[in-house]
Amino acid sequence: MSRFQIEYFSTALQRPTVFDMLIPNDLAPWQVSEYSSRPTRTLFLLHGYSGKSGNWIPEGLPEKYNFAVVMPSAENSFYLNGEATGHNFQTLVGEEMVNFVRKTFSLAQSPEDTFIAGLSMGGFGALHTGLAYPDRFGKIGALSSALIVHEVAHMQPGGGNGVANYAYYHSCFGDLETVEERDVNPEVLARRLKASGAKIPEIYMACGTEDFLLENNRAMHRFLEAEGIPHQYHEGKGTHDMVFWHEHIAKIVEWMFA
Amino acid sequence: MSRFQIEYFSTALQRPTVFDMLIPNDLAPWQVSEYSSRPTRTLFLLHGYSGKSGNWIPEGLPEKYNFAVVMPSAENSFYLNGEATGHNFQTLVGEEMVNFVRKTFSLAQSPEDTFIAGLSMGGFGALHTGLAYPDRFGKIGALSSALIVHEVAHMQPGGGNGVANYAYYHSCFGDLETVEERDVNPEVLARRLKASGAKIPEIYMACGTEDFLLENNRAMHRFLEAEGIPHQYHEGKGTHDMVFWHEHIAKIVEWMFA
Amino acid sequence: MSRFQIEYFSTALQRPTVFDMLIPNDLAPWQVSEYSSRPTRTLFLLHGYSGKSGNWIPEGLPEKYNFAVVMPSAENSFYLNGEATGHNFQTLVGEEMVNFVRKTFSLAQSPEDTFIAGLSMGGFGALHTGLAYPDRFGKIGALSSALIVHEVAHMQPGGGNGVANYAYYHSCFGDLETVEERDVNPEVLARRLKASGAKIPEIYMACGTEDFLLENNRAMHRFLEAEGIPHQYHEGKGTHDMVFWHEHIAKIVEWMFA
Amino acid sequence: MSRFQIEYFSTALQRPTVFDMLIPNDLAPWQVSEYSSRPTRTLFLLHGYSGKSGNWIPEGLPEKYNFAVVMPSAENSFYLNGEATGHNFQTLVGEEMVNFVRKTFSLAQSPEDTFIAGLSMGGFGALHTGLAYPDRFGKIGALSSALIVHEVAHMQPGGGNGVANYAYYHSCFGDLETVEERDVNPEVLARRLKASGAKIPEIYMACGTEDFLLENNRAMHRFLEAEGIPHQYHEGKGTHDMVFWHEHIAKIVEWMFA
Repeated sequence: MSRFQIEYFSTALQRPTVFDMLIPNDLAPWQVSEYSSRPTRTLFLLHGYSGKSGNWIPEGLPEKYNFAVVMPSAENSFYLNGEATGHNFQTLVGEEMVNFVRKTFSLAQSPEDTFIAGLSMGGFGALHTGLAYPDRFGKIGALSSALIVHEVAHMQPGGGNGVANYAYYHSCFGDLETVEERDVNPEVLARRLKASGAKIPEIYMACGTEDFLLENNRAMHRFLEAEGIPHQYHEGKGTHDMVFWHEHIAKIVEWMFA
Repeated sequence: MSRFQIEYFSTALQRPTVFDMLIPNDLAPWQVSEYSSRPTRTLFLLHGYSGKSGNWIPEGLPEKYNFAVVMPSAENSFYLNGEATGHNFQTLVGEEMVNFVRKTFSLAQSPEDTFIAGLSMGGFGALHTGLAYPDRFGKIGALSSALIVHEVAHMQPGGGNGVANYAYYHSCFGDLETVEERDVNPEVLARRLKASGAKIPEIYMACGTEDFLLENNRAMHRFLEAEGIPHQYHEGKGTHDMVFWHEHIAKIVEWMFA
Repeated sequence: MSRFQIEYFSTALQRPTVFDMLIPNDLAPWQVSEYSSRPTRTLFLLHGYSGKSGNWIPEGLPEKYNFAVVMPSAENSFYLNGEATGHNFQTLVGEEMVNFVRKTFSLAQSPEDTFIAGLSMGGFGALHTGLAYPDRFGKIGALSSALIVHEVAHMQPGGGNGVANYAYYHSCFGDLETVEERDVNPEVLARRLKASGAKIPEIYMACGTEDFLLENNRAMHRFLEAEGIPHQYHEGKGTHDMVFWHEHIAKIVEWMFA
Repeated sequence: MSRFQIEYFSTALQRPTVFDMLIPNDLAPWQVSEYSSRPTRTLFLLHGYSGKSGNWIPEGLPEKYNFAVVMPSAENSFYLNGEATGHNFQTLVGEEMVNFVRKTFSLAQSPEDTFIAGLSMGGFGALHTGLAYPDRFGKIGALSSALIVHEVAHMQPGGGNGVANYAYYHSCFGDLETVEERDVNPEVLARRLKASGAKIPEIYMACGTEDFLLENNRAMHRFLEAEGIPHQYHEGKGTHDMVFWHEHIAKIVEWMFA
C-alpha cells in the first residue's frame, strides 16, 4: 500500500493543509484481487472531533477492493463553512480536495467511483458533504454520526454543552437561531435534492446500540424515511469506539466497492 | 542538523497538532563551534499569516550558535486565544509547547535560554507571547510585525479589510470594540509589566522601509519609547519578503545567541 | 501518544537516517495508569526483513505501561555491521541511536530502563544487539526470530536461498565460511558473556508452532539451555504473521514493563 | 507548491522506500506563468553521496517553469544495481519510480517531458541513468559529477580511498577489475548508444573550477567529444558546494524547461 503525505496551499483555508492518502498501486502478486484490474476508485474518509488525517485507517480493505483513500484534516470544523475568512471546510473537502485529487492523480473520477464516509463528526461530514455535492459523491457511509444540528439550535451566547461552548458552535454552524433551516443542516440538503428530483447519493448509516448518539441517528433515519429518501440504516451492538467502527467500516466498504 | 516532525494531542486546541523542530546534535567535527559546549538553547520561531511550521527555516544558524528551533503551526490565529473552545493558540505556544519541549527534550530550560521570534503575524506573536510569558522567554525578535490591533479595532460585523473579514478578526481577537484595552494588545501587556516592575524580555524589532506595515512598527517603537521600555528598533532597505527576513533573522539570532 | 519522525545524519551509515518514536507524554487524565509516575522507560522495536520503522506499532501498550518506543529503520541489514563503508547497522542501533536518544530526550537511561525487541529479522536483531551491548539493554524480546546463521554458513558465491542471494548474505554477515564463529552469531556473543561472568540481559523468546522458523528458534532455545543461560522460551499457536506478533508482543511488553 | 512524501514497497530494494515530490498545482494567480498551460513535465533530481531525498530543492524554479520534481533516496548507491538481492538502485530510479510516477500521477509522460539531473554522486547517477534509459529521459543535467569509474577500477580488497573502502565500491560497482568495461560505466552506455544509432539524451554538464572532481569532468567531456556525442560542457567559478549547485541548477532547469 503506497502512503502519501501531501501538503498544498488551500485557498479555502487561506493557509497550507496537510493530508494523507493511500493508493494500492504497489501490490505484490499475491495481493492482486478480482478488483485490481478495475480503475482505482476513491474513498474520502473523514475523522471525528479531536481527530486528524490518518488517525483512522481501514487496514487491509483498500488492497482488497482496489480503492484509494483520501483523508482530509478538517480540524474540529464539522466539515462546514463558517463565517470567518479561511474557515471553509466544506469547500476544502467537497470542492478543493476533490479537484486536487482529480487533477493530480490517475484515479477514476466519476461520482460512481468517488465515495465518502466518516465517523462521529466525520459521519456528519460524510452525510453533509455528500448531500451538498451529489454530483461528486455517489455513495455516503455514515458511522455513529454526530447529527447535532437540533441540539445546538438556539444555544445562547455564553452557553455550551459538555463538548464545547457557544462560540465554537457558532464558528462552525453560524447563526444558531437559524441553523435548522440553513444548508449546514443535512436535512435541508436532502429535502432540497428530493424536491428538485436530483440524483441523491446512496446512503448507508450505522450506529451502536450503546452509542450516546443513537437517538440522533434514529431521528435522521426517521427523517429520511418520512421524506422517502432511500437509505440503509443499521444498528449493531457497540458503543462510540474503534471496535464498532472497524467492524462497520468493513461493511460499508464492502457495500461501496464489492 | 537533526529534524523532528512531532504530533501530539493538544489540550489547547482539543485536537492533535503537528510541529517541527531542529536540534543541532548530529554535527560533524568541522561544524563544532565555540558555542557547541554550551547547553543547547531554544528559539521558538513563529510563521506568518498563510504560513505553517517549517515554511521558514533559518538555514545554517542553529549549527553555528548551538540552538534548537521549535516551529509551531498556529494556523491564521495571530497566536491568540479566541473565545471558541479549542481556539487557544496563545496557550498552545506560550504554555503547552514550552512545557512539552521542556519535559520531552534535554535542552536548556531557563528564560535566559528560551527565546521567541517571528515574522509578520509571527512578529506580532513573538511580541505578544513574549510579553504574556516574561518568565518563559528572555528575548523577543519581531520582524515586520503585523501590529494591527488599532486597525481592527471598531471593525463592524459585515466589515473587513483586504486580508480577512470581521468574523475572522473576531475569532482571533474577540470583541473588536474593546480589543485595544484587552490582553490581546501587546501594548497592554507591556504597560502592565512596566507598572508591576516585573522583568520585561529584551526586545529587538526590525522592519523594511518599503514594508506596508512600516507605520505600524514605527508606532510600536514610539509606544515603547514613550513607556520607557528598553528595546532595539531597526529599519532596513527591503519589503515584506523573505529577502528581508533572511537578512534580519541572522542579525536577531546573533543578538540572541552570540 | 506523541509521535516523532526524526531525521539525523548517521555516522554509522554515512548518510541521513529517518526513524520514528512514540512517547506517551500527552495523555488524557483517563489514560493515566499506575506506571505513569515512573520515569519513562524505552523500548527499541526492530522491524523484520522487507519492513521499516513504523510498520509495526504496539498499539495501546506504551500508554498503559509508560514507555517510549524507538523504531529504527535498518533496511534489510540483519542489524549487523557489514564490511562496506556505511553498512554499520549494529552500530546504528546499539550505539548511535541509543546515544542519540539519551542525549536528546528526557527518558530513563539505565540498562534497567532500556529494552529491545523485534520480530523475524528484528528478533534476530534484538537477540544480537542485546547480547552485543549488555550494558545498554536490560531485557530482550525475540519474536519468530530469523536465527539463520547456520543456514547461511558455507553458502557459496552464486548461491542463495528463497529469500536472497549469496552477495546479499555476504554484505550482511561477512565471510560466510566463518560466520558461525564470529560476533555476527548471537551464540558467540552469549557464550562469551557467560564465560566472562558478565551480566546477560534477560531473554524472552516466542515462536508460532506453524512458523517456518520454528526449528531455528527451538535450536536457539536448546543452545541457551545447554549453555545454562537463563531465558524464557514460549511456543504458541500461530504462524509468521501479525496475528501472532500482536498477541505475543503484548506478553513481552507486560514481562518487560509491568 | 504542493509537497508529497511518498512511501511504497520497492521490489527493486525488497523493502519500502520513501521519496519526496513537488508538483506546482496549487499556484496563486500571480504565480501563473507562460508555462502553466503546458502539461506539467517531470524532473528526476538526484542527491549526492551522504544525502537523501529532499536535501536539495530547486526553490522557485518548478513554479516558474511548471515542472514536477521527483527526488528519490538512493542511499550511497551511485544509482547502480549491485550484486546483492535488493541492491538495485538503477532499477529503482530508472524503471520502478518512473513507472510509479507515470501510473500514479497526471503528468506528461513522454521522454520529451521527463528529464534527470543530479549533483556529485547524483551527477554520475543522472548521466548513467539517463544513458541507460534513453527512451525514458530526454535530457540529462550533470553537476560536479562523481565520475569515478576509472579511479575505483582495480582497487584491491582491503583497499579504499578517502571516502570509502573496497567493500563499499564493490557493493556499488561490482567487480572492480572489469568496472570500466561494464554497463556501470557511463562511457560504455554512451558508446553503445552511439554505435546503435539510438537517440541519445541531450546532455548538459557543469563543474566548478575549484572542484576536486574537475579533472574527472573534463575527462568525460573529452570522451564525449572524441565519440562525437553532442553535449554542453560548462565550467564556472566555484567549488563542490551548494553555492555552485544553486547557480548552475538554475541554468540547467532553464535549458531543460524554458
